Amino acid sequence: MNDQRPFAAEMPWPDFHARVKNGKTPILIPLGSMEQHGHHMPLHVDVLLPTEFSRRVAEQIGGLVSPTFNYGYKSQQKCGGGNHMPGTISLEGQTLVHQLRDVIKEFARHGGRSFAIVNGHYENSWFINEAVDLALRELRWDGIANVKVVVLSYWDFVNEETIAKIYPDGFPGWAVEHGGVLETSLMLALYPELVQLERAIDHPPATFPPYDVYPVKTEWTPASGTLSSPKQASREKGELMLAVCTDGIVKALRDEFSIN
Amino acid sequence: MNDQRPFAAEMPWPDFHARVKNGKTPILIPLGSMEQHGHHMPLHVDVLLPTEFSRRVAEQIGGLVSPTFNYGYKSQQKCGGGNHMPGTISLEGQTLVHQLRDVIKEFARHGGRSFAIVNGHYENSWFINEAVDLALRELRWDGIANVKVVVLSYWDFVNEETIAKIYPDGFPGWAVEHGGVLETSLMLALYPELVQLERAIDHPPATFPPYDVYPVKTEWTPASGTLSSPKQASREKGELMLAVCTDGIVKALRDEFSIN
Amino acid sequence: MNDQRPFAAEMPWPDFHARVKNGKTPILIPLGSMEQHGHHMPLHVDVLLPTEFSRRVAEQIGGLVSPTFNYGYKSQQKCGGGNHMPGTISLEGQTLVHQLRDVIKEFARHGGRSFAIVNGHYENSWFINEAVDLALRELRWDGIANVKVVVLSYWDFVNEETIAKIYPDGFPGWAVEHGGVLETSLMLALYPELVQLERAIDHPPATFPPYDVYPVKTEWTPASGTLSSPKQASREKGELMLAVCTDGIVKALRDEFSIN
Amino acid sequence: MNDQRPFAAEMPWPDFHARVKNGKTPILIPLGSMEQHGHHMPLHVDVLLPTEFSRRVAEQIGGLVSPTFNYGYKSQQKCGGGNHMPGTISLEGQTLVHQLRDVIKEFARHGGRSFAIVNGHYENSWFINEAVDLALRELRWDGIANVKVVVLSYWDFVNEETIAKIYPDGFPGWAVEHGGVLETSLMLALYPELVQLERAIDHPPATFPPYDVYPVKTEWTPASGTLSSPKQASREKGELMLAVCTDGIVKALRDEFSIN
Amino acid sequence: MNDQRPFAAEMPWPDFHARVKNGKTPILIPLGSMEQHGHHMPLHVDVLLPTEFSRRVAEQIGGLVSPTFNYGYKSQQKCGGGNHMPGTISLEGQTLVHQLRDVIKEFARHGGRSFAIVNGHYENSWFINEAVDLALRELRWDGIANVKVVVLSYWDFVNEETIAKIYPDGFPGWAVEHGGVLETSLMLALYPELVQLERAIDHPPATFPPYDVYPVKTEWTPASGTLSSPKQASREKGELMLAVCTDGIVKALRDEFSIN
Amino acid sequence: MNDQRPFAAEMPWPDFHARVKNGKTPILIPLGSMEQHGHHMPLHVDVLLPTEFSRRVAEQIGGLVSPTFNYGYKSQQKCGGGNHMPGTISLEGQTLVHQLRDVIKEFARHGGRSFAIVNGHYENSWFINEAVDLALRELRWDGIANVKVVVLSYWDFVNEETIAKIYPDGFPGWAVEHGGVLETSLMLALYPELVQLERAIDHPPATFPPYDVYPVKTEWTPASGTLSSPKQASREKGELMLAVCTDGIVKALRDEFSIN
Repeated sequence: MNDQRPFAAEMPWPDFHARVKNGKTPILIPLGSMEQHGHHMPLHVDVLLPTEFSRRVAEQIGGLVSPTFNYGYKSQQKCGGGNHMPGTISLEGQTLVHQLRDVIKEFARHGGRSFAIVNGHYENSWFINEAVDLALRELRWDGIANVKVVVLSYWDFVNEETIAKIYPDGFPGWAVEHGGVLETSLMLALYPELVQLERAIDHPPATFPPYDVYPVKTEWTPASGTLSSPKQASREKGELMLAVCTDGIVKALRDEFSIN
Repeated sequence: MNDQRPFAAEMPWPDFHARVKNGKTPILIPLGSMEQHGHHMPLHVDVLLPTEFSRRVAEQIGGLVSPTFNYGYKSQQKCGGGNHMPGTISLEGQTLVHQLRDVIKEFARHGGRSFAIVNGHYENSWFINEAVDLALRELRWDGIANVKVVVLSYWDFVNEETIAKIYPDGFPGWAVEHGGVLETSLMLALYPELVQLERAIDHPPATFPPYDVYPVKTEWTPASGTLSSPKQASREKGELMLAVCTDGIVKALRDEFSIN
Repeated sequence: MNDQRPFAAEMPWPDFHARVKNGKTPILIPLGSMEQHGHHMPLHVDVLLPTEFSRRVAEQIGGLVSPTFNYGYKSQQKCGGGNHMPGTISLEGQTLVHQLRDVIKEFARHGGRSFAIVNGHYENSWFINEAVDLALRELRWDGIANVKVVVLSYWDFVNEETIAKIYPDGFPGWAVEHGGVLETSLMLALYPELVQLERAIDHPPATFPPYDVYPVKTEWTPASGTLSSPKQASREKGELMLAVCTDGIVKALRDEFSIN
Repeated sequence: MNDQRPFAAEMPWPDFHARVKNGKTPILIPLGSMEQHGHHMPLHVDVLLPTEFSRRVAEQIGGLVSPTFNYGYKSQQKCGGGNHMPGTISLEGQTLVHQLRDVIKEFARHGGRSFAIVNGHYENSWFINEAVDLALRELRWDGIANVKVVVLSYWDFVNEETIAKIYPDGFPGWAVEHGGVLETSLMLALYPELVQLERAIDHPPATFPPYDVYPVKTEWTPASGTLSSPKQASREKGELMLAVCTDGIVKALRDEFSIN
Repeated sequence: MNDQRPFAAEMPWPDFHARVKNGKTPILIPLGSMEQHGHHMPLHVDVLLPTEFSRRVAEQIGGLVSPTFNYGYKSQQKCGGGNHMPGTISLEGQTLVHQLRDVIKEFARHGGRSFAIVNGHYENSWFINEAVDLALRELRWDGIANVKVVVLSYWDFVNEETIAKIYPDGFPGWAVEHGGVLETSLMLALYPELVQLERAIDHPPATFPPYDVYPVKTEWTPASGTLSSPKQASREKGELMLAVCTDGIVKALRDEFSIN
Repeated sequence: MNDQRPFAAEMPWPDFHARVKNGKTPILIPLGSMEQHGHHMPLHVDVLLPTEFSRRVAEQIGGLVSPTFNYGYKSQQKCGGGNHMPGTISLEGQTLVHQLRDVIKEFARHGGRSFAIVNGHYENSWFINEAVDLALRELRWDGIANVKVVVLSYWDFVNEETIAKIYPDGFPGWAVEHGGVLETSLMLALYPELVQLERAIDHPPATFPPYDVYPVKTEWTPASGTLSSPKQASREKGELMLAVCTDGIVKALRDEFSIN
């Protein structure tokens, strides 16, 4: 394991086959999006982060990482700024559902039985659930009933102690994290060359009423596209999160897939 | 307004027509589900509550309430106990999306321009967003570009003061509210004859890991089907919530639809 | 059975479970529509009638009634006045098909094996057939091959003797019954408070050429929206029909589901 | 017109173009099925008859006949014997809907504005309506709003006088006509070489309860596959029907398309 | 076999049943299109040719020919002139996929296990592959796992010797054959009354860049609609191709279906 | 242009916006697959190659490259070895169609008007055509009628002189190129670290009959998964192809998008 990267698509098929056919190797499927993340970060933050989490986790648990889903569900205003923002390129819900359904089924056809969907874009969440349900159903129809799928978003493994360290002055809340300190710190830890923190715009956390409006009222989204200021982001905070989340995911998958 | 119920389907068509054709009357569409809510409440809690909120709000703002959607998206384990629980009868995501898309478009065809989707089942949320997006798109293709849709879940209007009153000993959190004090109190305030509080099962709030597993691990869901104990529910708490949420929704819709 | 209403959604899940899990309890699924029925009746006639027939039948045969489908297929001009009429809010064919497919499958997942689709809106008919076919197919794929579905429209149980009594001066025919004597009489028997017979418009039965035209020629539909005059409707005629149809359906379901 | 057959597909494209581009030429689209019609008639009765009606009508009104739809919706037991009968090869509802939607839109793209759907298989009816509605909607989205579609089934033009002549001993009713005297007589008039009347099985008209059951109870369908006996069929009766229906359709289309 | 035509739809159901139920009889399904083929040939060339190939092959191998698919996938500019050409009436990809999926499944339901898809329209090719894959999957879900499908286009059986004879001056290539010498010669051999060679337009083979553009640049397609000149077509060349392709297909199906 | 990589997702949104909003910047969308390419190359050859071609071309013409599609249509036996081969993870046709449709529409929503679909997986071809057609149609419905899409596969720009140089002993043909000299040489030129030529298996070009069989006859595919031997591949041949194809694509897009 330790001499090669765990990306399934980087292997010739015989190596893939050797890893997948017995059903023991966990398959990690990272799901991202192409979505604006403010002036200071590129559009594929939600692709890079779950891919890297998947890679780190896979190396520890002997898993394989499938090619990342580069497009995700439509950005929503109160968690991602909204789909109207330039640079945000999204899929219809059913398109995402079918893509994930297809990919899970295909890995299972070759032997995969243990899957982790590693989500990096909040808006994907419910369509992931639907895709997994449809995939399991069709696999069942094909006589394959022993597939197990863990669905996770990496940020759900950030615990309260970590939040307290990252936000010494108080946490503005997950709801307005988009493009804020957490994501930016992770990017600083992993891809500092892609972060232009000097371009980040400082602004108070966005506030929204307790409902949504369609078509979006564009004035609700801060002009920057971020929902809270990333100015307090740092590489150290990113490394902290990285460690905490990676450990949490590794432990979860070891538990669920009985890996010791 | 004050001499009749605001349910659109209870009117003959000329009355409907008079109300809808000019595009001023808000149309409230309640969305529910058929989902288990513990031993002490019936399966249509998520139908009854948004319907009644819609009725109360509509009476105050001069709106019309469309027939409620009686089925919703698949119950998820960590917010609704899970779709495996007996009594839970759900729709596929795309079925729900298409149903709401169709209904919005039909009301708009007759003149409706202001819509409020009043959700009573958390799992419906993202499919509502998708349905609204598809409906607005097709209406646009038909040359109707001035439709506005407010999407809300009644519980999002409960404020912190109210929570503090309802949970004097501390709020276990929205995540485990399913079938708990909030929903049960509302039902006690509105439909006491449908609540058998003596059958409710007292148990500590459910705890879940920060991920989902499919097929669900049934042992994660408390045997009762509720995610926290409803024992502290009361009619008074329900009336408090009812007032707070109704007021909040009325205010929101007045603002959004410029109703004075 | 006799101490409670047979509506499945009014029960807590343990009661539902006790009734459904052994596959013996017939599940009745009422299908309606939101469709204009003239100046004298509300838009949900097609919801109320099959729901009430389902309730009465279920009480006699020990069945359960699922939540009614509140929206149906597009009203057709020659049987329902046409989808252009104000107040008529319809679903696309495929939306209805998928909704019914999903609901049948979900009840079957919990144990249901005997279903009666109780239709109250003629236009739903063929989409019901398709939905049942798709549901049975997917259930078969899931290894459930012993589901039986009876599809019926309540009016098909009106026999010729009854017609002769209801129309002493001659029956204008089923084709133009929409909003006429039969439906109005049933509503008078069951929901007199929802009928405003004084607003009904007297007109000769509609006549149509032996073909349809799309887009509809609106002038073909009587201005009232009814296809024949409801003026001869009465509570007594409604009660007669109610008895005849209920008895007929009860007998049919007893035969088909071997209930004695 | 009088020197060539009106089948659109038999022409080179310049001739097609000359006929279609100005929107005046009616396009007749015959819809059939592949369905058993007893021991004495082939499986494509429902293809041959509407095609020939379309041809005759088109010649009189200067119309074009598009290629026939060779497959139709699933045969239903009470009107076509049921889809379980050998030889019956059917489409899903949505497949048929999409096929007709596509074809109407394509002809309209080339200029067609006047369409007649000439149905030869009862079970197609509602899916035709849906297809027409979807086609008109998408054409509208493309800025084409002046398309008119007449939907007809040839048998609806048989009048009561004709029925009295064809059934001197009383009409068993349309419901059980499948493979009976009417269809067989038409085939004898048009394609006598495809009818083997000596193989027809004489049996009383089928009787059915006022509901459907799925999966079908195969014993309800007469073993022959016909729902009434074709023994009294004759070429003369067929020619009578042929004349009456052709005249009726010609008149209807002349009226609707303002052809003099 | 030798006393009747092999068209499945020309038989009464008992004869069909006798042939299909044991799974031995190959079912040939011809797929065509309605597509312009120049000034000299009708729009249904792609229907007529695969139908006739199917008939000839079926007679030799004891197969049955199903009703031809009269519409196909959208004409592409570089192989069929383009979908913009008058007279070309096409289906969406998914419509074609579903139609073929449905028809294969239906024949298999009645016993068919050996299928040959006989394609006459190049653009159908990939949608055929998809349809076959979906049909086999659903049949598998229904427990039918022994279906075999051969997919072929008749022209793929033309060998190099034949090409050399047909094009003594050099073959312009398959890419520009549309409406050219091969198709025209086949039509002259089989349906000379439908070919008006005098109307054919002589032009050099079309040349295209190595990519496609959408919307099509109409000037890329020769004004005639053909991609190479049919002027050198002859009945003799058609008969040669007919013999070679028929023999090739017969041999292929004998091999694949173990027919001796 | 010359100081940064042209990948759209690597930019913050204001930079994206500046490039896309005026409609002048060509958007290149690379489409790949996850497909076995023999023992000597990884599974994402079809992702890497069109991405790199897109990058090179974009740099020369001032274009932007969208995130690559990592999954493609089902591998076909005669051009890709077949979907049964381990490591091949594919999408259903409709899933691919919808994904590309969505992405084109989204870029166009933000201003994109000039698109190049850069295909790296032959099996994607027809589904690309369909996706483009659907995207253009829906854009048209949204009032956007000036979008132009060039669809290309990089290998179609290899000219005959190049082929002659790469295959001095004769070209086995495009049909059996899968995993052969062309693809391997390109990989050696671009990603030599991902090629293990020593593991490549030497075998004569695969031969196939002129038809397909489903389910695939696995014995038709060489055990290696390649359809011809890659042993004669070299970095130099790859660089030659790279230059020829890049130049060809650059010229084509300059022509089509009027870039000087």
